[in-house]
Amino acid sequence: MAEKRPPATLDEMRDIIAKFPGPDREAEEAARAREALLTKPAGALGRLEELSIWMACWQGKHPAQCVHPRAAVFAGNHGVASLGVSAYPAAVTAQMVKNFVDGGAAVNQLCRAVDADLRVYEMALEQPTKDFTVEPAMSEEDCATAMAYGMMAVEPGIDLLALGEMGIANTTAAAALCAALFGGAASDWVGPGTGIAGDGMKRKIAVAEKGVALHRAAAKDGFDLLRRLGGREFAAMAGAIIAARMARVPVLLDGYATCAAAAVLFALDEHALDHCKVAHRSAEPGHRRLLERLGKAPLLDLDMRLGEASGATLAIAIVKAALACHNGMATFAEAGVSGKE
Amino acid sequence: MAEKRPPATLDEMRDIIAKFPGPDREAEEAARAREALLTKPAGALGRLEELSIWMACWQGKHPAQCVHPRAAVFAGNHGVASLGVSAYPAAVTAQMVKNFVDGGAAVNQLCRAVDADLRVYEMALEQPTKDFTVEPAMSEEDCATAMAYGMMAVEPGIDLLALGEMGIANTTAAAALCAALFGGAASDWVGPGTGIAGDGMKRKIAVAEKGVALHRAAAKDGFDLLRRLGGREFAAMAGAIIAARMARVPVLLDGYATCAAAAVLFALDEHALDHCKVAHRSAEPGHRRLLERLGKAPLLDLDMRLGEASGATLAIAIVKAALACHNGMATFAEAGVSGKE
Repeated sequence: MAEKRPPATLDEMRDIIAKFPGPDREAEEAARAREALLTKPAGALGRLEELSIWMACWQGKHPAQCVHPRAAVFAGNHGVASLGVSAYPAAVTAQMVKNFVDGGAAVNQLCRAVDADLRVYEMALEQPTKDFTVEPAMSEEDCATAMAYGMMAVEPGIDLLALGEMGIANTTAAAALCAALFGGAASDWVGPGTGIAGDGMKRKIAVAEKGVALHRAAAKDGFDLLRRLGGREFAAMAGAIIAARMARVPVLLDGYATCAAAAVLFALDEHALDHCKVAHRSAEPGHRRLLERLGKAPLLDLDMRLGEASGATLAIAIVKAALACHNGMATFAEAGVSGKE
Repeated sequence: MAEKRPPATLDEMRDIIAKFPGPDREAEEAARAREALLTKPAGALGRLEELSIWMACWQGKHPAQCVHPRAAVFAGNHGVASLGVSAYPAAVTAQMVKNFVDGGAAVNQLCRAVDADLRVYEMALEQPTKDFTVEPAMSEEDCATAMAYGMMAVEPGIDLLALGEMGIANTTAAAALCAALFGGAASDWVGPGTGIAGDGMKRKIAVAEKGVALHRAAAKDGFDLLRRLGGREFAAMAGAIIAARMARVPVLLDGYATCAAAAVLFALDEHALDHCKVAHRSAEPGHRRLLERLGKAPLLDLDMRLGEASGATLAIAIVKAALACHNGMATFAEAGVSGKE
């Protein structure tokens, strides 16, 4: 990173992960010490306290702040979309990107509601990845390029990143990726996505199964599975998570596809996602299973299943509230409130 | 209400509940119809959609709005506080009210974070209610006066009310009230509150048990239990819920004590809380049990157990986000996005 050139190969990405910076224990301890002084019974703010300490730990400073949060949405198209695995046509990916740009999507309203900026990254939508039931979705070079592209979402000044995606058929890719990374039947990982059922669901399971059968044994590691079964938006999200770790920007992960991309890093190093929180539990059934594997408890559980960083963006409100309490509350001494008897 | 005089007796309160306005089905249908047109798969925003429809239904208009939300915190002192049931001395109630007024408490920071106003209602703190292990906590008149006082929190212009409380020993009162309303052993309903354990917990259970034994059979209905076992802040919260229903202001209920106050109305009419959502599930174990009885799913589950409307105020952010999506998103037609295949 010293050369200001993004890493250009998957091996360079592997090297970066091996040298990931750890938590800032000093900032963490400072946050923990302040929590204990605030006018509330110890632990009474529950996960808000956890979030305040986590933000300090991974921003590497105390007090932590959340004044420039960003929602980043990566959009990609998938070769398997032509196999009838989605309730919507592949053209919807580009149409929704236009909707993001025009301000009409859910994530636009959510960004306004939580005062976050929004960046939408369109990833060669006119060139879908290859059909993973017959060949790898991406070459090593394509995958590394997409990861490097994703790293650009982490610009100086950003203090929290809400990460998400848009891509017709990408819950099929997410399911194949999870089955390949964690095992289990493809049907354990496949869900309705945007609303497929019946024969469509059978096709979706068969497509994921075929992909896993073709690529699982052949892949040498998580990154290799990412390029074989994922898509450009998955690679970009993995890149963004890596860049955020290097830049000390905590990350909120959105739903199933986002967490599947993150799981690639987890498979390489189980501490690679320590700077990430899962924003919400998606209604997509594979997401619950995936969160168990990642050992991550979601912040919200509102039955959402939209993607486009909607759950992650909403969770920015929770992080802001946590820091508002941590940074703004009076201590027992300041307020003249009696302590525990 | 036509005379602009708040009801002065519990019987008048009973009459009001019997004549509660119902849902506005026209506004509800308008909200439901719009949800179906927005650029997302049907239902993909999960409980955000439920909230948008609920707000329209109970504000009685579409589109609903949330531009003047209010957090209302009622503070009261309890005769049973002298029986060693809390980890903190009774003086903390007044000290925390001062902290609210000075802006140093969690709820102050949360109100700023979600852009809500805050009203704190101090209810004769120097005169605790009577010890309910030997006599009713309040006279009928005291209880009705406290209810009428609580009704004042619903002023014109407010479009959402986040309701909460402060009162040392009030989880003991909440537990006794719940056991009397719903049955079960007192120990099923008693939890650590602000952090009591060991002998303190045994005392707390014994106090709740004694209260239930003395008053349950003698009470003629939920309101009578409210005056016998509750406190002024419980009565005031019940009054605020009633006033909100009349004024078409949806309500977010905070934790255990708030929901115990609300449960009094539920016991009188199981539809009396249809204009209320439970903001969060408190870490206090009796709250989970109570929400099952009320049939209400919490919006947040963040292990909070602070009271002072903290969970309810945080949930304002979720309601605002829901309405931002509902009111601001483009329709499929407006955005030129293809529908389901």
